[in-house]
Amino acid sequence: MAQPKQFEQIILDIEDGIATLTLNRPDKMNAFTGKMMYELIEAFDITDADDSVRAVIVTGSGDRAFCAGADLSEGAKTFDYDKRAADGEAGRTEDVDIQRDGGGRVTLRIFDSLKPVIGAINGAAVGIGVTMQLPMDIRIAADNARFGFVFNRRGINPEAASSWFLPRLVGISQALEWCYSGRVFPAQEAMEGGLVRSVHPQTELMDVARAMAREIADNTAAVSTSLTRQMMWRMLGASHPMEAHIVDSAAIYSRGKTEDAKEGVMSFLEKRKPVYPVKVSDGMPNFYPWWNEPEFKWIGDKD
Amino acid sequence: MAQPKQFEQIILDIEDGIATLTLNRPDKMNAFTGKMMYELIEAFDITDADDSVRAVIVTGSGDRAFCAGADLSEGAKTFDYDKRAADGEAGRTEDVDIQRDGGGRVTLRIFDSLKPVIGAINGAAVGIGVTMQLPMDIRIAADNARFGFVFNRRGINPEAASSWFLPRLVGISQALEWCYSGRVFPAQEAMEGGLVRSVHPQTELMDVARAMAREIADNTAAVSTSLTRQMMWRMLGASHPMEAHIVDSAAIYSRGKTEDAKEGVMSFLEKRKPVYPVKVSDGMPNFYPWWNEPEFKWIGDKD
Amino acid sequence: MAQPKQFEQIILDIEDGIATLTLNRPDKMNAFTGKMMYELIEAFDITDADDSVRAVIVTGSGDRAFCAGADLSEGAKTFDYDKRAADGEAGRTEDVDIQRDGGGRVTLRIFDSLKPVIGAINGAAVGIGVTMQLPMDIRIAADNARFGFVFNRRGINPEAASSWFLPRLVGISQALEWCYSGRVFPAQEAMEGGLVRSVHPQTELMDVARAMAREIADNTAAVSTSLTRQMMWRMLGASHPMEAHIVDSAAIYSRGKTEDAKEGVMSFLEKRKPVYPVKVSDGMPNFYPWWNEPEFKWIGDKD
Repeated sequence: MAQPKQFEQIILDIEDGIATLTLNRPDKMNAFTGKMMYELIEAFDITDADDSVRAVIVTGSGDRAFCAGADLSEGAKTFDYDKRAADGEAGRTEDVDIQRDGGGRVTLRIFDSLKPVIGAINGAAVGIGVTMQLPMDIRIAADNARFGFVFNRRGINPEAASSWFLPRLVGISQALEWCYSGRVFPAQEAMEGGLVRSVHPQTELMDVARAMAREIADNTAAVSTSLTRQMMWRMLGASHPMEAHIVDSAAIYSRGKTEDAKEGVMSFLEKRKPVYPVKVSDGMPNFYPWWNEPEFKWIGDKD
Repeated sequence: MAQPKQFEQIILDIEDGIATLTLNRPDKMNAFTGKMMYELIEAFDITDADDSVRAVIVTGSGDRAFCAGADLSEGAKTFDYDKRAADGEAGRTEDVDIQRDGGGRVTLRIFDSLKPVIGAINGAAVGIGVTMQLPMDIRIAADNARFGFVFNRRGINPEAASSWFLPRLVGISQALEWCYSGRVFPAQEAMEGGLVRSVHPQTELMDVARAMAREIADNTAAVSTSLTRQMMWRMLGASHPMEAHIVDSAAIYSRGKTEDAKEGVMSFLEKRKPVYPVKVSDGMPNFYPWWNEPEFKWIGDKD
Repeated sequence: MAQPKQFEQIILDIEDGIATLTLNRPDKMNAFTGKMMYELIEAFDITDADDSVRAVIVTGSGDRAFCAGADLSEGAKTFDYDKRAADGEAGRTEDVDIQRDGGGRVTLRIFDSLKPVIGAINGAAVGIGVTMQLPMDIRIAADNARFGFVFNRRGINPEAASSWFLPRLVGISQALEWCYSGRVFPAQEAMEGGLVRSVHPQTELMDVARAMAREIADNTAAVSTSLTRQMMWRMLGASHPMEAHIVDSAAIYSRGKTEDAKEGVMSFLEKRKPVYPVKVSDGMPNFYPWWNEPEFKWIGDKD
């Protein structure tokens, strides 16, 4: 088990092709901070760049909380970034990056991940604790997990680009019902509503997550997986299937002549486990990325 | 209970933060008319402008019908707007607004509502009686309710922008199956297909709707609710989560320094019911609305 | 029963308003070829142009396979189109059409179909055998059917514009789970995941498909059905419901004055079966098609 970097508020372990990223402030129910935001972003930079990583599991430390949301220990000024900046804390400055919602910076980074991301939700997940999960590919939950889009009960609003992600995962009606009420609900309701794939005993949660990661790592080509992730998430925003056909055609042409495709067909015909040689770090097709990255633009109050 | 305006074909009651809008042509199974269209649009203007209104419930008069669709009493010329205009009825003129599908004018108005909208479907809902429900946030149904996208059995086609709304609510396959066959189906099938959230005995329907509205009114900030509604519905059309991140960032910054956010955090820490002071009429963030409203364009026959 | 054209790898039968299109390489588990691609496209040209056809059922020959995917008999060079071209097989040339993914050419053609398309999945459906189903309106499966998005196990990637279609049918999480693992799964899982509508005994599959087609043919107007199909699929890519309202308004105005609309209302009032006179071949509204067809663009490797 390798830890490529020591973080303060998260732990990143890499073993046998699977990266496990653990939110690690157990005495604070893994509450989210600016520090945690930067560490999460850096961790995904590491997993993207490390060819040994075939899948990423995100979980929380302990068995009580995945992430209890924003740290409210600052009280009434918690979400008043100007006041916190005036008090010497990180806050709004001329740097537009500071104005950007921290939750959204994390979810946009996960959106861009080259490796599949599985959320193993081991306990309470409220506020940013649940919205950070939305760009993960698959969510499984411990039976004691609970969820809450509590923003409207705090006088603020859903963030982390959840207004884009959540209706695409659970439908607009379920998304609004959860966000309008702001109530905390159990894992079973999360599953019935389409937010999590399945619910498991706490003691089995990580085994299930690892088995899903294992199946990907043992059977499929790494570049195929990365392309699949980028294609599927990005085509959610495409207005016509022709956009997918354009990317598919280039991808099939490019991938079809690689050693991966030869190995894929031959291992199948020979009924043996495949060994795919092409690496993500230097084997993505040369038309990747095929999109123009959208830019952040500040539309809020000027003064 | 206040009735801010006396309408002819609908009733608008406002009580304890909840507006109830009742389609009211009980002898005609609440069939839709041009008059009802204008009254519905005006009613939503009233509920948007009235800060006491925290949620809107839409239902039908009596226990037989929510809305039986277009009034077919004109027979063969029902949908022939030129003929009806020549006969002195409202119809096509040089005014492009008259050419606009009346159902769509209602659903686009509901789409823009600043307050959450709950459909309490108390009986038969066919044609415009069901398509008018689609931009409502949540639909619950009485167990005797039935639904029908009957347009193709009348020789016309789905309207009220239902080709945009319906596949987003129930998926393209279910949407097409219902619209292709045009058959009338029971509440249970509507629930299983994802059109309604839950089915209730007729006598309990309004209590369930009011309890949902009550939970929103008692626990959440009004401006937060309005922002959430606008963000979620509009991001259905956004091609990349960055669009949500741009709005989120401005919203969290703006809302975070309001008295609402202070009250939200402090009431939570003090374990008491919140009282949010900011009003929708003058408290929406100054970047709202953040979009350019699309314009209607006539693409049909010129003569 | 009429066969308007004799194909080599498919069979097209037309009877009583229902076209049945059968993939017909039973000794090869109906594996997909370039020939089959061209024949499928031509068959949909025929069903679109034939006013007697009110619905199309697509199935496979025999009871083992719907379509076993790409024919892998070429072994390691199966997906290497340059090598196959050098060997004198169809492959990459200066003609950009040859570079286009064949699966995508089929699914884009089905996307444009003027007639409802029902997939009757009678057995194994893997690779292009499952992705070709995605633009069909409704899928039903025999209980021995099985499905597999196996691309990543062959070192290539999902194609046939499935990155656009699949998440819209089953949600992004289910789409990624199936494509990441590449595993083959049974009909029951396909139904629970939202890929197929219902599962039936093999012996009843075609009867169920025909009953669905029959209900459309016997009760609804042909032009209404074609408009509904085009509106619903295309509005999946529309950013605002105004786009649907613009098309609706023109469609209701145009259709409302036809003999179809008169017959639709009068047959309903007179409680009799309707007979709609307007034909798709010359009765589509004059604003149809209302979109600009997107063009294919090659973004792959230049040399």
